[in-house]
Amino acid sequence: MSDIITLAHGSGGKTTGDLIKNIFVKHFNNDILMKNDDAASFMLSGKVAFTTDSFVITPVFFNGGNIGKLAICGTVNDLAALGATPLFLSCGFIIEEGLPIKELEAIVESMGNTAKEAGVKIVTGDTKVVQKNAADKIFINTSGIGIIPDGIDISGNNAKPGDKVIVTGTVGDHGCSILLERERLDIFTDLSSDCAPLNKMVGEVMAKTGNIHVMRDPTRGGVAATLNEIAVQSKVGIKLYENRIPVKDQVRGVCELLGMDPLYMANEGKMLIIAPDDSVDTIMSVLRNSAYGAQACIIGEVTDDHKGRVVMNTLAGGNRIVDMPVGDQLPRIC
Amino acid sequence: MSDIITLAHGSGGKTTGDLIKNIFVKHFNNDILMKNDDAASFMLSGKVAFTTDSFVITPVFFNGGNIGKLAICGTVNDLAALGATPLFLSCGFIIEEGLPIKELEAIVESMGNTAKEAGVKIVTGDTKVVQKNAADKIFINTSGIGIIPDGIDISGNNAKPGDKVIVTGTVGDHGCSILLERERLDIFTDLSSDCAPLNKMVGEVMAKTGNIHVMRDPTRGGVAATLNEIAVQSKVGIKLYENRIPVKDQVRGVCELLGMDPLYMANEGKMLIIAPDDSVDTIMSVLRNSAYGAQACIIGEVTDDHKGRVVMNTLAGGNRIVDMPVGDQLPRIC
Repeated sequence: MSDIITLAHGSGGKTTGDLIKNIFVKHFNNDILMKNDDAASFMLSGKVAFTTDSFVITPVFFNGGNIGKLAICGTVNDLAALGATPLFLSCGFIIEEGLPIKELEAIVESMGNTAKEAGVKIVTGDTKVVQKNAADKIFINTSGIGIIPDGIDISGNNAKPGDKVIVTGTVGDHGCSILLERERLDIFTDLSSDCAPLNKMVGEVMAKTGNIHVMRDPTRGGVAATLNEIAVQSKVGIKLYENRIPVKDQVRGVCELLGMDPLYMANEGKMLIIAPDDSVDTIMSVLRNSAYGAQACIIGEVTDDHKGRVVMNTLAGGNRIVDMPVGDQLPRIC
Repeated sequence: MSDIITLAHGSGGKTTGDLIKNIFVKHFNNDILMKNDDAASFMLSGKVAFTTDSFVITPVFFNGGNIGKLAICGTVNDLAALGATPLFLSCGFIIEEGLPIKELEAIVESMGNTAKEAGVKIVTGDTKVVQKNAADKIFINTSGIGIIPDGIDISGNNAKPGDKVIVTGTVGDHGCSILLERERLDIFTDLSSDCAPLNKMVGEVMAKTGNIHVMRDPTRGGVAATLNEIAVQSKVGIKLYENRIPVKDQVRGVCELLGMDPLYMANEGKMLIIAPDDSVDTIMSVLRNSAYGAQACIIGEVTDDHKGRVVMNTLAGGNRIVDMPVGDQLPRIC
């Protein structure tokens, strides 16, 4: 086999077949994928959640993960955010001619490992190759299917005044870590992306209480964009307390240095949970005992005031509007 | 709104929101998409088919369609090939900064129209933007979900000796048409891609008979690659009769001129159907009365001989092996 990806690997011919067998089947190995049809098939019954995400992050390998791990986590977390148990994933690769096959295998291997951790099967896929400079190394699409348990109705439309806003850990780790890698700033080398599959933690929370109104993972645009979306969708205000928002010292330091705001930085292993007051203690107790939620904090509440807006009570004691970002501090963060 | 796509359109912020509202929601409009969560949700019960495909075709607009129409047809046809009724699609866009928004809208509009023709809903999506020269105009991933009726078991593993091989129309139209566009050969300007959603035609066939062993759409690598895959999966031989394979005169002409083989050229609106002798008349009669199947032909049969191989009885009277292609005659054909 060649050492690098060539156009023939995306042809649908023998070379594609070899790549599928030697790389994808090796690491994604499961009974459904093995049927080798153009679509996977399996039994399913109930309320289904279905989501898709394309990943174009640069650099492809970063401290704490790579584009493959990120692709699995992103889709698993989007399903978990609706309260669904993620079950089946598809993956579509668009690869730039010339990518070393050992880099592809490292990416695919970590997809296989992360899928295993999350308890999901990668059941169908597709590989396209484009010529040099027609893509940037590798783009991955993952779509996913999960089942939402009976009686669960979690949606960005469901926040209610009086609800509390929880974040499951420190804010801005992913965005800040990618920024450092990209700019080759060798300060804080112990900072890494928080990229993680959150479905098992969310499942443990939901085993204790179904009384959750909204969950959403604050990726692109960070906590600020996500809470603004929810405020608009649910037609409520959201009030944050700056002194309660967990931010790592390194992230705070980098943001101060570069004039950025951790609230707008992407996270890939955090969930925002909005729930009524009487289920908050239960939720916090499960989160605090989980590896990915040990630093969970209640950072704000849903209000009847300033509908459609997020307002933050600042360290200085005043209130400021946390706007929806127009563009992004950092493109290609996921 | 800007006239071209900028990095901000992929940021997850306000500019992304405007694009979603003004372009995607406008043309994909349906109740499930409108919930605006990170995942769509809907009820489903039974045997589910799930597939994914990324589309990287160049040129993006071609005679008979564009990348958007192709993306809907490709995924709908992969589901139909398992005998599934396609229901829900996701779409993930990766767009190169600088794409004119009116080109994006033309693509999205034809996705909306094709989805309507096929009777499927686009229920969830994702948009990423990469900087100039990090992608080639636009790539689209579509994943899809369908339901396979009870008792149906159609798979590339199911071909049986004695089965007949049907192709639902002329071979090589898509590949040949793209080749002409790409090379700016202005001969045969009436030749166009066969790009079409085949699910309704397949549904009509299945309403008359469930007695079908294999269906697969011969896209990349054409009829040759697809039949080779099936021969290997089903551990059977496949015998073709060259004089029965329908090829348009223009396609034959271009292939002769350029030394290419229509059997290896991509199709985007054709299905290969392998079925037992006693259901062939029924299948052919439905196909012949359908707009997308009027030129259906029985082109060969499944044999006990030469297992894993496709052999063609040629016009000259001899037999030749139709090999699995190694690479592709034409990259980025879909």
